[in-house]
Amino acid sequence: MADSDATLVRVAVDLLGGDGAPDSVAAGVVDALHRDPDLQVSLVGPEELCHAVSGGAADVRDRIVIVPASQVVAMGEDPISGVRAKRDATVCVTAQLVRDGAADAMVSVGSTGASMAAGIFTLELLPGLTRAALAVVLPAVSGPVVLLDVGANVTPAAGLLAQHALVGAAYAEVLLGLTEPRVGLLTIGEEAGKGDQTRRAAAKLLADLPVRFIGNVEGDDVLVGDRADVVVTDGFTGNVLLKGMEGTYAVLGDLITVHLARSHPAALVAVRRATAHLHPDRLAGALLLGVDGVVVVGHGASSVAAVAGCIAQAAYLVRQSVLPRLHEALATLITRRATALLAEAAQLAEAAQ
Amino acid sequence: MADSDATLVRVAVDLLGGDGAPDSVAAGVVDALHRDPDLQVSLVGPEELCHAVSGGAADVRDRIVIVPASQVVAMGEDPISGVRAKRDATVCVTAQLVRDGAADAMVSVGSTGASMAAGIFTLELLPGLTRAALAVVLPAVSGPVVLLDVGANVTPAAGLLAQHALVGAAYAEVLLGLTEPRVGLLTIGEEAGKGDQTRRAAAKLLADLPVRFIGNVEGDDVLVGDRADVVVTDGFTGNVLLKGMEGTYAVLGDLITVHLARSHPAALVAVRRATAHLHPDRLAGALLLGVDGVVVVGHGASSVAAVAGCIAQAAYLVRQSVLPRLHEALATLITRRATALLAEAAQLAEAAQ
Repeated sequence: MADSDATLVRVAVDLLGGDGAPDSVAAGVVDALHRDPDLQVSLVGPEELCHAVSGGAADVRDRIVIVPASQVVAMGEDPISGVRAKRDATVCVTAQLVRDGAADAMVSVGSTGASMAAGIFTLELLPGLTRAALAVVLPAVSGPVVLLDVGANVTPAAGLLAQHALVGAAYAEVLLGLTEPRVGLLTIGEEAGKGDQTRRAAAKLLADLPVRFIGNVEGDDVLVGDRADVVVTDGFTGNVLLKGMEGTYAVLGDLITVHLARSHPAALVAVRRATAHLHPDRLAGALLLGVDGVVVVGHGASSVAAVAGCIAQAAYLVRQSVLPRLHEALATLITRRATALLAEAAQLAEAAQ
Repeated sequence: MADSDATLVRVAVDLLGGDGAPDSVAAGVVDALHRDPDLQVSLVGPEELCHAVSGGAADVRDRIVIVPASQVVAMGEDPISGVRAKRDATVCVTAQLVRDGAADAMVSVGSTGASMAAGIFTLELLPGLTRAALAVVLPAVSGPVVLLDVGANVTPAAGLLAQHALVGAAYAEVLLGLTEPRVGLLTIGEEAGKGDQTRRAAAKLLADLPVRFIGNVEGDDVLVGDRADVVVTDGFTGNVLLKGMEGTYAVLGDLITVHLARSHPAALVAVRRATAHLHPDRLAGALLLGVDGVVVVGHGASSVAAVAGCIAQAAYLVRQSVLPRLHEALATLITRRATALLAEAAQLAEAAQ
């Protein structure tokens, strides 16, 4: 039993989400509880299944709260109509716990669309935003880089990319402790004007935001991280890029393992240690950035370690008070932008007199 | 001197293209000539510079043909108006050599836009195509994978993605010797319907093509290669993905080098050997697939080895008679498609009677 309930971070977890559910989720929950004595998990799923998880983990049982829910929004299902129709779906109930203050954060590794829909329909958006984005923090060489969007809005207009830039900058400020994080626009050439029409329009909007916009960045800049701390893109490109980087890591890792396992086992251990922080499992989940709650969305194929990682990440974000601080940072940026617009309007009015 | 001029492959090279031009291009040319005794290079650039290259490489001098051209379409310049205005630009003259039969192939590592514009304006498109695509051949785990487009058409409609699928399949058949190569559509979920509107429309069109369309693939499938031999995408996403994978390779390579160099130098050699075929330099250039000529476009930041690689790749494509065979394979696919459409039309006419 933890010393005091007041210090517990309460994370609601969707037991039925993910390719390996419920087993991998259950194992991830137990693993996360073992690693973090100040964690409490609200396990959302069919009562019998939840009891089985809880019963099989005697030492952490008192930190598992069972919340019954039986429906599922499946991977192939249309997430929006699925979430609308099934109010008793595990992912919906998980989000409701956050809305009602019964949990501090939620985690689902089920259908990304369903997790987003549940988060967005159930929780409010932060003031000034019209959409949320999926944001990941990549362990780039020069320091962490916030990449967004990685899958929420597949064909955003330029204005939405500007919104992503604003909330991404606020997030980097709060989470990474950066003053004026450098914001880059992901496109296919460094020179201004490179890319498609959306990128060209977005570049103009980003230049007017009260953020440190450094211009275009390319696909190979992201994981180096020496040019931008926040990389803004659409959800289609961001998702393909993220998975492409993960795939490259896996392919190289497998090749190296095969070649070193017999001949240089000690070196293999050294390589694994040196590259462990880049392992896709360590990325854990994406934050549904822009909703008024900590919603961590994991990969459907999440391993046990990745599920535990998502839960740990959610707990970390709560302990760092990321959400209230994000509120504040975003409000400051929006106020600055509004002030600039008012000043421009005043100048125009003066000129017109 | 080569035995007979008849066996020589003649590659025209743009001396002024690329971040390191003319030095890295010159060194790449000399390197390529050293490696391939049956190669002749038409060096296109300012006469004095060309003479300096030729003069500094006595042993291969007789296989360098100097073709004077002095203008440059710079990296920041609008490629289309640049190529239109500067008919004496090195990249334009290089393409003219191919058109006029004075060279068998061309290579430029300058502005990708300018190389594409010069290729497209100077050479014809293959019958049945309305656009060309940039195609790379990736050394995936399960075998080579053709990825296209990586930068020619940034916002293609679904019909153009179908065209890319057709020419990509023909290219994989010819270059990789595959019967019915598997064609995948790059998007952000395996299930049918995942992605944006363009992808959904393209999936329907691809299903009707006389190619083996296997459905959606994701960013992490590309470098594994067990699902598709040809991956079709738009030039924006393809470019970001390609650079993202290259960047990940570089970041991991640097990390591993730093950690193994002192402690396990022998293992480092083994790692380098095991992963050398994935090194971005080995990718060399992209083929401007769809024009009636072998046009190899390299990265602006190409190293000497990468320039030499682009030239070797161009020579290889010529020796494999890829272009005439591509003509034929594409014509077969287009005829099959036309036959299917005619049959459909006949059925409709019959039903209407």
